[in-house]
Amino acid sequence: MADMSNGEQGCGSPLELFHSIAAQEELVRDLEARNAAKDEIDSAVKMLSSLKTSYKAATGEDYKVDCPPRDPAPESGEGLDATDADEDFVDPWTVQTSSAKGIDYDKLIVRFGSSKIDKELVNRIERATGQRPHRFLRRGIFFSHRDMHQILDAYENKKPFYLYTGRGPSSEAMHVGHLIPFIFTKWLQDVFNVPLVIQMTDDEKYLWKDLTLDQAYGYAVENAKDIIACGFDINKTFIFSDLDYMGMSPGFYKNVVKIQKHVTFNQVKGIFGFTDSDCIGKISFPAIQAAPSFSNSFPQIFRDRTDVQCLIPCAIDQDPYFRMTRDVAPRIGYPKPALLHSTFFPALQGAQTKMSASDPNSSIFLTDTAKQIKTKVNKHAFSGGRDTVEEHRQFGGNCDVDVSFMYLTFFLEDDDKLEQIRRDYTSGAMLTGELKKELIEVLQPLIAEHQARRKEVTDEIVKEFMTPRKLSYDFQ
Amino acid sequence: MADMSNGEQGCGSPLELFHSIAAQEELVRDLEARNAAKDEIDSAVKMLSSLKTSYKAATGEDYKVDCPPRDPAPESGEGLDATDADEDFVDPWTVQTSSAKGIDYDKLIVRFGSSKIDKELVNRIERATGQRPHRFLRRGIFFSHRDMHQILDAYENKKPFYLYTGRGPSSEAMHVGHLIPFIFTKWLQDVFNVPLVIQMTDDEKYLWKDLTLDQAYGYAVENAKDIIACGFDINKTFIFSDLDYMGMSPGFYKNVVKIQKHVTFNQVKGIFGFTDSDCIGKISFPAIQAAPSFSNSFPQIFRDRTDVQCLIPCAIDQDPYFRMTRDVAPRIGYPKPALLHSTFFPALQGAQTKMSASDPNSSIFLTDTAKQIKTKVNKHAFSGGRDTVEEHRQFGGNCDVDVSFMYLTFFLEDDDKLEQIRRDYTSGAMLTGELKKELIEVLQPLIAEHQARRKEVTDEIVKEFMTPRKLSYDFQ
Repeated sequence: MADMSNGEQGCGSPLELFHSIAAQEELVRDLEARNAAKDEIDSAVKMLSSLKTSYKAATGEDYKVDCPPRDPAPESGEGLDATDADEDFVDPWTVQTSSAKGIDYDKLIVRFGSSKIDKELVNRIERATGQRPHRFLRRGIFFSHRDMHQILDAYENKKPFYLYTGRGPSSEAMHVGHLIPFIFTKWLQDVFNVPLVIQMTDDEKYLWKDLTLDQAYGYAVENAKDIIACGFDINKTFIFSDLDYMGMSPGFYKNVVKIQKHVTFNQVKGIFGFTDSDCIGKISFPAIQAAPSFSNSFPQIFRDRTDVQCLIPCAIDQDPYFRMTRDVAPRIGYPKPALLHSTFFPALQGAQTKMSASDPNSSIFLTDTAKQIKTKVNKHAFSGGRDTVEEHRQFGGNCDVDVSFMYLTFFLEDDDKLEQIRRDYTSGAMLTGELKKELIEVLQPLIAEHQARRKEVTDEIVKEFMTPRKLSYDFQ
Repeated sequence: MADMSNGEQGCGSPLELFHSIAAQEELVRDLEARNAAKDEIDSAVKMLSSLKTSYKAATGEDYKVDCPPRDPAPESGEGLDATDADEDFVDPWTVQTSSAKGIDYDKLIVRFGSSKIDKELVNRIERATGQRPHRFLRRGIFFSHRDMHQILDAYENKKPFYLYTGRGPSSEAMHVGHLIPFIFTKWLQDVFNVPLVIQMTDDEKYLWKDLTLDQAYGYAVENAKDIIACGFDINKTFIFSDLDYMGMSPGFYKNVVKIQKHVTFNQVKGIFGFTDSDCIGKISFPAIQAAPSFSNSFPQIFRDRTDVQCLIPCAIDQDPYFRMTRDVAPRIGYPKPALLHSTFFPALQGAQTKMSASDPNSSIFLTDTAKQIKTKVNKHAFSGGRDTVEEHRQFGGNCDVDVSFMYLTFFLEDDDKLEQIRRDYTSGAMLTGELKKELIEVLQPLIAEHQARRKEVTDEIVKEFMTPRKLSYDFQ
């Protein structure tokens, strides 16, 4: 899988964008002045250019230093189609919007042909499981689905299903955003009590990145530790590296070849934008991400059963893989996997580029110290606040673009408190520093506890999770 | 692998072609008159049309009934580029020539950039092994190579190498032509005493043909029995089905992905003629045929050694796979495989189409009875003889186009006898029926003995050959 929750949120009003650009220009100058790493500079320049694009889309004019936008652009002007979310671009490698409003998830649902997770579905999940819906459901962070009603029908009829999610291990460093699908998947596993398979696409990362096989596999194992630290039940969870499992499974490759026979280059070109210059590994990889959607890829768990349906929680940028999978499934005699899609986790900068493991300031990493967390949030979290305390008290802050507030919607469990913060920040009663303090106080223990749990994950435990074996379910 | 020895030979002079066309027209009328199977008629019509094309290429004129060509075309006329072997087409799925002279193997060597197996190389093999060269070497059936001198250098310096060949199991039925690479490989194994791996590309056949996975795998196992019946040493030979071995080997998939990263769609398009409508399985398959060229695809045999060079005996139509492999090898830190190329084994009809397992009359099958062999040779083997006994006695037959004679060059061990037959048939002293009788007497015991050996190949023996295991060599 490509990273399951990559951030991009277009942000703010033209004026906010104007200020962001000015700040970003300064950052770039700064990085260049102190001879920062090429990666870091490139990423900052990319961000700058992306901000300028957004600015032009929002205002119809190029950004000019010291020349702030004259009028706020209308929220939905007829002549301003360029700001329309129709131009959002979402695939597993790129999430881009030219709209200052950010990705329009409702339009994405229409475009992808998925279904909205509405109140009724959330209620049904609550009724079926007898558990309070996870905050990601309550708050629309998992916002879209395919065939979730089918899964619930099966569950209510005591028919089995299983969960499948994954991670592309592109580096050792994982950030909090990477945990989103795993936190939610753990909750699903707990409330539904079902088997779970987690694919580490080290082969994908080898193909896409400048990595050796050993490095990619090493990252898979390291990342597995962070995943295990989310609290998965060892008796119900199988984690696998593609590079490893392909050579250990009597079922996986067979499904890969089956899928590969039923997908043409034209199709993957259309779905993933591959070109003739792409290597044949990339071109055939989608079949490898598709294969775990079919239960007989795991004979050690499901024996030769092909009819156990799969439910895939993932960020919506992974949907192209599974649209392809769902297209192929009936043609090879397997049930279509169901899906639950999350929104993207924003970069600290509210960036319109992906968060990058090579840019330590783009997110909170799972290895960050309490002090680092505090510094990063205070220094880098894009603020929806006003330029001065006076203005802020008078006009209030904008939670819709404030990254600290967004992060709180992901990690603060208490609905009432979240709502209180929203009200106070919007009214101006809460200042940006105070809002950031709230986030810091949520993130510091969350990361510290994660680090403590990760420490307990020994090599033996990882090995056990990654050994093909029967789980504590009986499939005949 | 696609079939390793597929037949096509263009044949003879314009006059000979003229007679062939007349005979073929009669055959087509005949088949139609007796409502023969559509396949059979199609194949005869195709052959007819191919003969006519060759005729036009050779004479510059369309074929006209009862109007024999005026002058023999010059052997290499300047104005006759259409007869040039430059128009030969050879890839793993198609072998085609518009030249009446058939595939020009010397020109193929130039075009493919390989080297001729000359007298000097044959002598060197004899010196190095202390064995008389196999008749396939003595007679130019294995005619081309890449880096064979390197292999001999290694051998003379007591450095190890290994053999790799394969088969695409497209049906249960194998014909004598399919044995060519195996007969030769067995000889190489015997005289050099080296490990051998044999790839059964059941995944390829599943991708290319209308087969289920189980069928393709079943054919792989059935074909393995015929291969084993060639006499391979169980302690020195590993036979594997891709569908099986991919899921059992810690090294194979890793090499596949490595290769897939270093080959683009543009490259396989150029080499194999794939198009955008081809499935992604076909597009990525070349990496799977390439991977066994690298010793660490077989850690059970070579441990983690990556430096044991590979020698691949195969029909020249498989060379595109290995040109690609040799291009990739240095970029992923492995030695280039060496190659020994054979000519194509001709269809009984001397056809310009491939022999087909679905056309029982296109070759001698390994399941044929003595009687079937006799009938097929007598009835279907394309003859280089004259139309009447009188003409034959007067002008003699043409061994260059006579399929019975060609088959004898493949299977009759006795050089002197073969030479005697050539002389007698060419002079007219030997009639077509007598020549065919010679072939029948070679083929009948050869097939009967094969069948007897195959009968001894139990399921346990196949299983042993196909189990990943250490061979009787020590690699550290």
